[in-house]
This record gives sequence, structure tokens and C-alpha cells, in this order.
Amino acid sequence: MTSAPLLPEWQIVEWLNSDSPLSLSGLRGKVIMIHSFQMLCPGCVNHAMPQAEKVHRYFGNEQLQVIGLHTVFEHHSVMTRDALAAFIHENRISHPVGVDQPGELTPIPKTMQDYGLRGTPSLLLVDRAGRLRAHEFGQIDDLALGVWLGKLLAEP
Amino acid sequence: MTSAPLLPEWQIVEWLNSDSPLSLSGLRGKVIMIHSFQMLCPGCVNHAMPQAEKVHRYFGNEQLQVIGLHTVFEHHSVMTRDALAAFIHENRISHPVGVDQPGELTPIPKTMQDYGLRGTPSLLLVDRAGRLRAHEFGQIDDLALGVWLGKLLAEP
Amino acid sequence: MTSAPLLPEWQIVEWLNSDSPLSLSGLRGKVIMIHSFQMLCPGCVNHAMPQAEKVHRYFGNEQLQVIGLHTVFEHHSVMTRDALAAFIHENRISHPVGVDQPGELTPIPKTMQDYGLRGTPSLLLVDRAGRLRAHEFGQIDDLALGVWLGKLLAEP
Amino acid sequence: MTSAPLLPEWQIVEWLNSDSPLSLSGLRGKVIMIHSFQMLCPGCVNHAMPQAEKVHRYFGNEQLQVIGLHTVFEHHSVMTRDALAAFIHENRISHPVGVDQPGELTPIPKTMQDYGLRGTPSLLLVDRAGRLRAHEFGQIDDLALGVWLGKLLAEP
Repeated sequence: MTSAPLLPEWQIVEWLNSDSPLSLSGLRGKVIMIHSFQMLCPGCVNHAMPQAEKVHRYFGNEQLQVIGLHTVFEHHSVMTRDALAAFIHENRISHPVGVDQPGELTPIPKTMQDYGLRGTPSLLLVDRAGRLRAHEFGQIDDLALGVWLGKLLAEP
Repeated sequence: MTSAPLLPEWQIVEWLNSDSPLSLSGLRGKVIMIHSFQMLCPGCVNHAMPQAEKVHRYFGNEQLQVIGLHTVFEHHSVMTRDALAAFIHENRISHPVGVDQPGELTPIPKTMQDYGLRGTPSLLLVDRAGRLRAHEFGQIDDLALGVWLGKLLAEP
Repeated sequence: MTSAPLLPEWQIVEWLNSDSPLSLSGLRGKVIMIHSFQMLCPGCVNHAMPQAEKVHRYFGNEQLQVIGLHTVFEHHSVMTRDALAAFIHENRISHPVGVDQPGELTPIPKTMQDYGLRGTPSLLLVDRAGRLRAHEFGQIDDLALGVWLGKLLAEP
Repeated sequence: MTSAPLLPEWQIVEWLNSDSPLSLSGLRGKVIMIHSFQMLCPGCVNHAMPQAEKVHRYFGNEQLQVIGLHTVFEHHSVMTRDALAAFIHENRISHPVGVDQPGELTPIPKTMQDYGLRGTPSLLLVDRAGRLRAHEFGQIDDLALGVWLGKLLAEP
């Protein structure tokens, strides 16, 4: 069996596209795809965000949960909660998006720190038992992403 | 000869990517390609803005001037001047962009009103004599745009 | 467990990109991706063939075997063995391709008949035990293909 | 004025998608876009041929004539007239295509020799007076092609 570590809980100040707060522990039993993005990051807007929405629409929420994580580490004054809400509306994003909790004494928000993310876009895949199974920085090809998801979904 | 009307001057509150204000009359003698956009409009971000930047880099500024016009008519509180500056920086836009002057008693900014734009993205092509020769709403194909530009550039 | 049927052996008159003939039984233990194509079918040339080659290069041959099946059912006089060899060379195809055995009294070749293929491109996925697990006609998205492959590869 | 040379007549053994033979002199007064291709050349099949067909459908035949030139200089035994006809049918090509006359004592066909083509795809643009105004080897961007066509169409 894998000895991959449990991913610690995210720290979210507000959720969009979700009626109630989501937690890793509450999603136990599902495969979780977390994509970390910034609304002004071109590689996120052009590739990672549409890909995440495509995965969300392809699978629904039963076996897999797609989570967007708005990890603002630059241009804080303009990538606000309201700007994000407008972005999500205009881009017709329907999967849940959490706003990462701002850092103290650092521009890096808390979950981004805890997860050791190197930038945006980043992708984290969590198995049904809550263990971190993949962590990639940069754009991921659809085929490679599909293979990862297929393997994790095949686990009991 | 064409009887196309002169395009009236734009009304710009601030320029980005230009050391000094630009005017239609000051650009007389060049073909001018104006693309109206909003930084949160997906069709602008994914198609019209990269296309405009591509035209700018293909031609340089000698015969043709590409102008971005930030015509904010919705989500005014988040599509601010600072947000636009961050957007331009992150997307490596190098052609001049003017911020359309906000409307009074209407969310539609002034140049957008004067030019009768129906939404974003919109494209206006102005000939060397300052006359409006094309006005399109929505995404334009590269081939069709190239033909228009080639024809206008061929005029004396 | 699945009750999917065993796929019967293909009937191949010649192999390209393989030093020796390949058989389904000889590949038992690997996941097998069979893509049926014609060298003059645009959907094959533009999508299915590059996708198959991409899968082949992504995985190598250890766990997964990609097989092209040239199922000529029209334009027989020009989609010959020599024409196929030139096509494979020019398109830098490196995965094994088998030429389906011509039919008797019918333009449909034998494996295409046996497998009940409706046209090209078609995709068949076979699990490690030789059972047919997916059969699709038309172009398949990379994400969906990846998920299928990931699930089959996860089986013991 | 331009001092570009007149392009000599092509030497065609058979036309497809044309009821009668076409000649450069017979097309005088129109802009002519000649694209040289081989049906087994990937850069032709994926880019230059669809681009030529797009130009043909965009303009019609009144001001501009698109001509495909099948310049077979390799794999002669399989890129036959019948194979070309099947290719044109399957790819729904509707613009006229001429088969370049085979060379004597050389694999290079005659028009390809006369025009000094370096390979496929190649693009030749001829103005209304029959003069060669552009000659490019390799894939051409839609924007750049449009600009060229627009300029030539603007000439009297």
C-alpha cells in the first residue's frame, strides 16, 4: 500500500459555489482534485481553470470533488473576494472555490504555505483516504490528468 | 472613394503602455486598430486581447497602431485602474491601453457610448484618414482581420 | 467482477513497426488500446492517430500496448500496404500497426467484421485478462481516454 | 511600381475540382494563391490544405483563385492520381487541384522545378498582373496570409 501522507486541512476564509464550508475530512471517501490558482494568472485562466471545470462537469460530485483554491500571493489589493466572484460569474465556473486565508507578515496565504505550493497553477490529488498522491506545479496535460484520476478512482 | 465617417476622438482618463496620451488626430496617417475589452470578459482574455497583441508585435507601430480600450460597463468596483495594470503586467501586454472615461448616470463609459459599441470584445478599424472602416462585435478570425488590415494598409 | 467478453484474436496480414507478429493472447497481462483507422480518414489522421501515438510515447510498452489496426473498407486500391508504410513514415508513427485481412465477397475486412466496428476511427480497450472493456466510435477526448486507461491499469 | 517577375505557366497533367484546365494567363485579373502540397505531407494535411480551403470558401472565386498543386517528389508509386482523388473526396476539398507533370530523369515534377520550390507545403502569391509577389516554404500564419491577400486584392 501507499505510504503517502495525509494532507492537512485547508484554511479557507470564504467559499464560492458552495452553500456550506467544505473540509477534507468531510470529503473522505471521494477522490479530491485541488487546483490552486490566481484570477490574474494567465496559465490558470487559459488552461488550469477550464480543465478543472471540465473535470467537474465530466464526473459530477459523487466519486470525485474538484476544489479551486484561490491562493493570492501577489496583487492582493485587486484580487479581492468581489473580483473573484465576478471572475467566477463571467467564466461560468460552477465547482466550489475557496479563498485561501491571508498570511500574517507574509504575502503567501496560509494553505499555500502549509501545502508548500511553488506558484500557480498547482494541482494536488488526494485519494479516498485523504492522502496526498500527486503534487504538480504548472500546466498538466488532459491525458496525464485522466490517467491519475482513473487510477485513484479505481482504488476502493 | 469611401464616404465612411470620421471616428470622433476617444475620451480616455488614463493610458497604460504609453508615455504620453494618444489621440486619433495625432495618429492620422496610420491605420488604427481599436479593440474594446474588459479584463473580466472571457472572449476578450482568450481571443481578442492575444490577437491584438499579436497584431501589435507583427507590425510594430510605424504603419499601424493597435489601441486597447478598457470599456468597463459592468463590475466597475473590481475592474479598476490598478486591477487593469496588474492584468496587463501578468499577460505581458505591450500595446497602449486607454481607460474609457466613466459615464455619468449610466454604467456605460463615454467612448463606448459615442462609438455605439454593443459589448466586448468589439473591433474598430480606422483608415489613414481617420475614417471608421469596420466595426465588429465578437470574435474575429485571424484571416479575416488580416485581409482587412492588408487592404487598409494598401491605401495611400 | 466484470463479465465483459474476451475479445477474439485479430486477423492481420502484415505488421508495420513490429519485428514479429503480435497477438492478443501474447499480450495478456497488459492493457491493450486498439485504434482502428484508415489512412485517408480525416478524423483518424487529425485526431485518433496522433492521440494513439501520444499514448504510446507516454506509457511505453511495459504496462500498456497501443495497436493501430488499418481497417480499409473503402478506396481499397489506393490505401495499399505501401501507401500505409509511406503514411507511417511521414507521420513518424512508432507504435505497431497491423493491416486487417481483406474480406471475401465484402469490402469490410475480417477483424472489422468480427469486432463489429461501425467505421473509423474506432477505439477498443482490452483489460489485462483480454476482455473487451470499452468500444467507442468517433473521436475520444484525452481526459476521458486517460480515465479509462488509468482505471484499467489499476486492475491487478 | 513593383518589378516582380511574371510567374511562368504551370504544367499540369490533370485537374480535379475543375471542369476545364486552368491557366495563369486565363486567370489574369484575379489574385492567385497557389499552394504546393503532397497528400502524405503532414504539414500540408494538417495546416496548409485546410487553410487553402478556408481561403477559398471565404473569398469565392471572383477576386481570388485558390489553386492546389500536387507536387509529388517522393513516394510516387502511392501518391497517384486515384489516391489524390480519394484524399480530396474524404477531406471535402472543393478548390481546384492540379497534378504537376512528372519530371524526366528526376523525381522532381516539372512545375516544382520551374518555380524553384524547396518542398511542401509551399505558397506562391500572384498579383492581378500575373507577377509573383510572395514565395514561402513551410506553414504560414492566417494573420500574415490575410495581410498579403488584402494588400494584393487592394491593387487595381
